[in-house]
Amino acid sequence: MEHNLQHTITLLARTPAVLNALLCDLPEEWTMRNEGEQTWSAFDVVGHLIHGERTDWMPRVHRILECGESRAFDPFDRWAQETESQGKSLPQLLDEFSDLRRQNLNQLRALNLRSEDFSKRGRHPALGVVTLSELLATWAAHDLTHLHQISRVMAHQYRATVGPWAAFLGVMKCAGHSAPPAATGTRPKP
Amino acid sequence: MEHNLQHTITLLARTPAVLNALLCDLPEEWTMRNEGEQTWSAFDVVGHLIHGERTDWMPRVHRILECGESRAFDPFDRWAQETESQGKSLPQLLDEFSDLRRQNLNQLRALNLRSEDFSKRGRHPALGVVTLSELLATWAAHDLTHLHQISRVMAHQYRATVGPWAAFLGVMKCAGHSAPPAATGTRPKP
Repeated sequence: MEHNLQHTITLLARTPAVLNALLCDLPEEWTMRNEGEQTWSAFDVVGHLIHGERTDWMPRVHRILECGESRAFDPFDRWAQETESQGKSLPQLLDEFSDLRRQNLNQLRALNLRSEDFSKRGRHPALGVVTLSELLATWAAHDLTHLHQISRVMAHQYRATVGPWAAFLGVMKCAGHSAPPAATGTRPKP
Repeated sequence: MEHNLQHTITLLARTPAVLNALLCDLPEEWTMRNEGEQTWSAFDVVGHLIHGERTDWMPRVHRILECGESRAFDPFDRWAQETESQGKSLPQLLDEFSDLRRQNLNQLRALNLRSEDFSKRGRHPALGVVTLSELLATWAAHDLTHLHQISRVMAHQYRATVGPWAAFLGVMKCAGHSAPPAATGTRPKP
């Protein structure tokens, strides 16, 4: 599937509503529990998405447009939400994410990117050369990887409760496929 | 996590809104494409959920309450949506699912199940003896396994578009964990 900016924006624009519909006012048994030590709850994931809106996606778009490959992206802190979400409620985080996403998509639309912009190159501190198109597609796919994660973390809470049906539920067998462990929300166990 | 009927119902009640927020009016590149031969698109999954509302969950609740273990559940047709969804649009399917889910939850609440009911036993044609509690928990976990699947199927459409970032996106490596292949939406390839 070739990158289509309008399709990417259409997906990005609906994630806040998806997470609101799924999580807002859901009992904490679903939203605050994780999959074990050094893993994330749904609450943690929303904090991570907020940090991405602030420090990852649009700042990297600007870095590519302004510096090309000459200056690598700033590294992303995957555990920033541990401190940034402290003292906040999940509904507060969901509102914060929704506001930031709206502002960022307004910024993105205002850039009026043209097809020749999509092949512009930047430099990722670990992955090396990447394109603007790949960055924008990854922003959308990153929403999906965390929706995938949230559904798995929630299902994990019922892994014993479903009894023998666990054999038929793929989500119960998913371990998250973390490649570099620090990249997808699971720290290696000490 | 012990089974809590109110928590199960709270989750079941929001799935139609989650799927509407995620899928309604999304470009067909996201909703009508699958992961390859004999796999499902998001459109197929919604059809499967509809068939479950009609023939699986509440009929099995009634079977347990009326027959216990003496009469096994009717087998579930995991490919019924291939014919039942024909000629329908995704918004139509989403509305149909929403209506059926609402009716089924009204029926479930009207049963006024008490804690002693949850240990009542029925018979699954493949899994053997199961309890009412396990059936109800599975209904909710089944929503989550298909949300997990939809996010994966959608992400699959961008697997090349994200370039090297695929290494950091767990969802791109998920193959669905189908145990008996027919159980989770993937038929074995011919």
